[in-house]
Amino acid sequence: MELMEAEQAIKALLPSKRYRHSLGVSQTAGKLAAKYGADRDKAELAGMLHDIAKYFPDDALTAMLQRRPDYGTDFLSYSDKLWHAPAGAIYAEEKCGIDDTEILQAILYHTTGRAGMSLLEKIIFLADYIEPGRDFPGVDEVREAAKHDLDEAVFLELQKTTIYLMEKRQRVYPKTFEAYNDLAGRNN
Amino acid sequence: MELMEAEQAIKALLPSKRYRHSLGVSQTAGKLAAKYGADRDKAELAGMLHDIAKYFPDDALTAMLQRRPDYGTDFLSYSDKLWHAPAGAIYAEEKCGIDDTEILQAILYHTTGRAGMSLLEKIIFLADYIEPGRDFPGVDEVREAAKHDLDEAVFLELQKTTIYLMEKRQRVYPKTFEAYNDLAGRNN
Repeated sequence: MELMEAEQAIKALLPSKRYRHSLGVSQTAGKLAAKYGADRDKAELAGMLHDIAKYFPDDALTAMLQRRPDYGTDFLSYSDKLWHAPAGAIYAEEKCGIDDTEILQAILYHTTGRAGMSLLEKIIFLADYIEPGRDFPGVDEVREAAKHDLDEAVFLELQKTTIYLMEKRQRVYPKTFEAYNDLAGRNN
Repeated sequence: MELMEAEQAIKALLPSKRYRHSLGVSQTAGKLAAKYGADRDKAELAGMLHDIAKYFPDDALTAMLQRRPDYGTDFLSYSDKLWHAPAGAIYAEEKCGIDDTEILQAILYHTTGRAGMSLLEKIIFLADYIEPGRDFPGVDEVREAAKHDLDEAVFLELQKTTIYLMEKRQRVYPKTFEAYNDLAGRNN
């Protein structure tokens, strides 16, 4: 699937606000790829597709994750806000014909992160947080870091997201903790 | 070892400020045990001994943890501030003749917590945070919760401790994350 086709698929499946977010993530991911030496086409395509399953109903997401345990059934024990990421990777593989593992993994981990993220995974994870349509406390600090240090920007995103969830007394997906520790370990 | 003997051992091994902290934890643990139906004698003894290895040098702590992997060598991959807890349990077992597994586990997990803490483990973990000598932001909120809901107080301690560490960009011991998720899961 090429970028234009992906955009049409996204436009058909997502409400307009989420479609515009997807365009923002695709463009931001492309810029980050150019800056940090990743494949720009893959970054734009992964960014376009990352939220493709965002508006699938919970029972459909559950069925997809149960059918494809290779994409991680443990997501189902945590917030349903996480399920669209592995479901999006499954949908991209099965319905969009994406067979590039790097792209599929970047969609799979775009919400949670994980320890040892690939360059493309970091780019999609970060682009989702800082694309121009995003506006919440702390986002500008992460945007600033993204201009000169990809790992620092990803670290700040993990730190802020986890603290936000914990202040709201939410459970945190274990791979997000592991991703935090992985990058915090750079400094210790 | 009886409580009076433990107090003498602590007095010999710790500076006076840390000795007074140990008295505070012992007394607070005794009160919490009476309130929440744990064994008061065990709580006072575990509270007295919990920091017994706090001033051992790092190379001694390292040697102890390597010699007794059943107490968790993974501590060595994280901050040296954690090492006195498993080393204290080893010392209590080997030098103080404590053979009560509940007491040893309460010393072992008093700094990090873990998922599925026993009643005595929760009491020592909490008493260490709220004994009267402690004074830091948020401690009064945890003291207040401890008056009526042990799990809520332990949850708040885990939440505040983890956020504090993350704001300082520190790595967090995985069992502390698991303990947080375990108790956050009560509410979700």
